[in-house]
Amino acid sequence: MLNFEKKQREYLSMIENSLHFYLPQQGQGQELLFQAMAYSLENGGKRIRPILTLAFCEACGEDPHAALPFACAVEMIHTYSLIHDDLPCMDDDAMRRGKPSCHIQFGEANALLAGDALLTLAFETMLDLEPAMPVAPQRVVQAASVLAHAAGGSGMIGGQVIDLASEGKQIPLDRLKVMDALKTGALIDAAAQMGCVVAGASEQVCGAASLYASCIGLAFQIVDDILDVTGSSELLGKPIGSDAEKEKSTYVSLLGLDASRRLVTELTAKARETLVASFGERAAFLLELTERLATREK
Amino acid sequence: MLNFEKKQREYLSMIENSLHFYLPQQGQGQELLFQAMAYSLENGGKRIRPILTLAFCEACGEDPHAALPFACAVEMIHTYSLIHDDLPCMDDDAMRRGKPSCHIQFGEANALLAGDALLTLAFETMLDLEPAMPVAPQRVVQAASVLAHAAGGSGMIGGQVIDLASEGKQIPLDRLKVMDALKTGALIDAAAQMGCVVAGASEQVCGAASLYASCIGLAFQIVDDILDVTGSSELLGKPIGSDAEKEKSTYVSLLGLDASRRLVTELTAKARETLVASFGERAAFLLELTERLATREK
Repeated sequence: MLNFEKKQREYLSMIENSLHFYLPQQGQGQELLFQAMAYSLENGGKRIRPILTLAFCEACGEDPHAALPFACAVEMIHTYSLIHDDLPCMDDDAMRRGKPSCHIQFGEANALLAGDALLTLAFETMLDLEPAMPVAPQRVVQAASVLAHAAGGSGMIGGQVIDLASEGKQIPLDRLKVMDALKTGALIDAAAQMGCVVAGASEQVCGAASLYASCIGLAFQIVDDILDVTGSSELLGKPIGSDAEKEKSTYVSLLGLDASRRLVTELTAKARETLVASFGERAAFLLELTERLATREK
Repeated sequence: MLNFEKKQREYLSMIENSLHFYLPQQGQGQELLFQAMAYSLENGGKRIRPILTLAFCEACGEDPHAALPFACAVEMIHTYSLIHDDLPCMDDDAMRRGKPSCHIQFGEANALLAGDALLTLAFETMLDLEPAMPVAPQRVVQAASVLAHAAGGSGMIGGQVIDLASEGKQIPLDRLKVMDALKTGALIDAAAQMGCVVAGASEQVCGAASLYASCIGLAFQIVDDILDVTGSSELLGKPIGSDAEKEKSTYVSLLGLDASRRLVTELTAKARETLVASFGERAAFLLELTERLATREK
């Protein structure tokens, strides 16, 4: 019988401890950089991506500790992308997760460099040999390669550029899907796949993890759009979002609320089927996680 | 008998062709990003770092083609660091190598993301399996790890942060040395070491490459400082640099011109000795390169 909360706490504790461990401490004059990196990396968040990496590794029958460097690497890359996204030349956001953004706290130049350093730290972390829990070099290369491609110009960064070019414009559904698949989907995909690669899973199993990730990645984005509308509608008399937000194409603005909800249900069902077919009983935690992501209320 | 120019042209041609080959072409709407990446990466430069990678690989008796992904990766990281350095929140430089900087040409947001994408592309490139010229996964991990650590917060980025914090201040010689060792030395060290790692060289040989690199990295920086003074002094009646430049500590301002020149001679001699002791006749190209770097006039 699965105790979801206990397992989730176990994963979270592994992740938080390791993130702290991997952060550089001893500097030669660049301590402010290390503080800025820690400030953003240790600022909570749901840690969905690293949890997926650990859970897929365990669903493949491997000790999830082996996947920790890769789980932490995907969170480092997610965090760096938020730091750079918040910069004045990008979204110019002064707040992130209830605290001043990295550039408000440490200045623009240090935030830029802290982002660069977290992206680089992701690779330092994956490529360091771990004597305590060794992963075969072939698997290290494959997993790190999956993350590099997902994070790069043909993945996450590509999605950010498409997003920039679409600002304040109505875009069609297929372009919105491509943008989200790159901007948020690629990293979720890499998180799931890396767990399998570290465990030495077959190409077929890695493919199943990737299919699962593409379903929940899209569902996650649609739920976000639904919550933006249903959440805001409760704030009676308050204008819904800024002008730019109002003009932005979303799944709800393009499909309507009902069709958006149906699509989430379909994607979640497909994600669950994929899990059961490839991982059987070992998918218990991931099945519950999938359900909770689809029915979340914030 | 070494034909230095011919060998240099051969290396340069390998590097330029491979850089072009590794750049992403086919986008899904992010073509502007790819243009910005190509604009900065294919904008000349002396390619000293990738040449070191290929030359050390060949000095170890291995076909330098095997080291091409690593040579190109170090140049991608060097280029991304220049793009981010030129941004308004950093040095705010409008020109780079005689052309408008990346952010002048493509806008700040696209330049930021082009830098991020080039840093990521370095790892995509190293971690892709090359069926034509396979490098053992163990060596791939080791070489990519060397570059990641050299480029990160404890390497190049750390040096940039120390540089930022020292702006407009006089700093002592030991701090200037630490800053340069991180900011420019670390990447030169990684370039040399990676060539040896790809060739499967012993730890001792990798250590010799690293010692060589630390000598020429420092010598290179001192020559830069000397040329800044002797070059500028020819511009009679023109103020030497900006106020900030004038106040900046350099090897020349701290040691004087004569002692700086002696130090370059000493470092170059040590670099040459290290080459001869570890690589013998195979060091011919590197010996000549070392001499030319020390006596260059621009």
